[in-house]
Amino acid sequence: MSIAIVGGTGPEGSGLALRWAQAGETIIIGSRDAQRALETAAKLSASAGADKKISGTENRFACSAAEIVVLTVPFAAHAETLKHIEPSLRAGQILVDTTVPLAASIGGKPTRTLGVWQGSAAQQAAELAPEGVIVVAAFHNLAADLLQQQAAIDCDVIVCSDDKDAGKRVRELARKIPGVRALDGGKLENARIVEQITAVLIGLNIRYKGHSGLRITGLPAAAFER
Amino acid sequence: MSIAIVGGTGPEGSGLALRWAQAGETIIIGSRDAQRALETAAKLSASAGADKKISGTENRFACSAAEIVVLTVPFAAHAETLKHIEPSLRAGQILVDTTVPLAASIGGKPTRTLGVWQGSAAQQAAELAPEGVIVVAAFHNLAADLLQQQAAIDCDVIVCSDDKDAGKRVRELARKIPGVRALDGGKLENARIVEQITAVLIGLNIRYKGHSGLRITGLPAAAFER
Repeated sequence: MSIAIVGGTGPEGSGLALRWAQAGETIIIGSRDAQRALETAAKLSASAGADKKISGTENRFACSAAEIVVLTVPFAAHAETLKHIEPSLRAGQILVDTTVPLAASIGGKPTRTLGVWQGSAAQQAAELAPEGVIVVAAFHNLAADLLQQQAAIDCDVIVCSDDKDAGKRVRELARKIPGVRALDGGKLENARIVEQITAVLIGLNIRYKGHSGLRITGLPAAAFER
Repeated sequence: MSIAIVGGTGPEGSGLALRWAQAGETIIIGSRDAQRALETAAKLSASAGADKKISGTENRFACSAAEIVVLTVPFAAHAETLKHIEPSLRAGQILVDTTVPLAASIGGKPTRTLGVWQGSAAQQAAELAPEGVIVVAAFHNLAADLLQQQAAIDCDVIVCSDDKDAGKRVRELARKIPGVRALDGGKLENARIVEQITAVLIGLNIRYKGHSGLRITGLPAAAFER
């Protein structure tokens, strides 16, 4: 099973790639520019260890070659990138959307979000993806700066999807990142809230100088294993 | 300094009243029905201890007598209650809005929210309150069931306000609830996100059978003291 990271040269994408490569996953860094994808793949291989499986190629080729596609582009490039990769996506593939519609993506504040007609970036992805592609929203609240380091991450990942099996698979992927716990956040429509939380966390980071994350309390331990 | 809890006979309001009374605050339970307010006040006194200062009266009288007014009514009664108490509010008073615009308040799902024209319930409160009343949004994510028990609560409170001093005062009030830490969530407009988080927590409660809350990670310890 291989994972394509579309926009994998960016901070969030390369951070996820690093963590999953270290956990033994096969990673394909995708970029609009194949050369940049190769450079990032080489850099990540140097960090993760030469025995790790990280390659790089143009976004469409990355999607064709992968079972799971993870979308990590800024919101300003979200729709355009989806239209670009659309011919390379196929029914049954899992498309993980990590996008937060920050106002910063069009020159506004990073503590504000844009209204997305469909309700959330993830729902926009579901509309733009070919029929049968299963969209899962996750990883919005993980700080890219922390992903790029080696330490365990003190944050939970809330996973939203209309497909229970795909959601479970992505929660398993989340748990491969040291420290991370994963929860079922319900249907894809709930991504509209989970995406927004990132704007609050960014505000806290600015106000208090930190890399904030969140932990969910008050649930039985089994909740984090399902 | 006394605190009026408008809608104080409900689960969230009576829970906050109990915790603050136990911490030594003077509490006035407000209700549309003065008799019900008195009954709740008596019940809370029995739980909190006879030396605690808890009284009950009609919402308007409660507001007139208090320095801080805490609004804990369901969203369906939010605007109407604000219009009712408006003549009893005065400039300089702090109005703490805990309201979450859950779709359940008009017969929809508790895991979905309603769009509020002003952006959030708290911003609606700011529009309806008399000029000079300082609105602070807080306590949305504290489970009423946990407030009504005696144990420390494993949850952080994110406080949003356009007035820094009022925000600080409400954070101090939050910290009087055992276990609770409080953070500055920025301007009142950010309440639109903090309010929504409750819908996600309710979804987790339904899915996993718990009383979920949230903790913010990755910030310096000093963040929770300011």
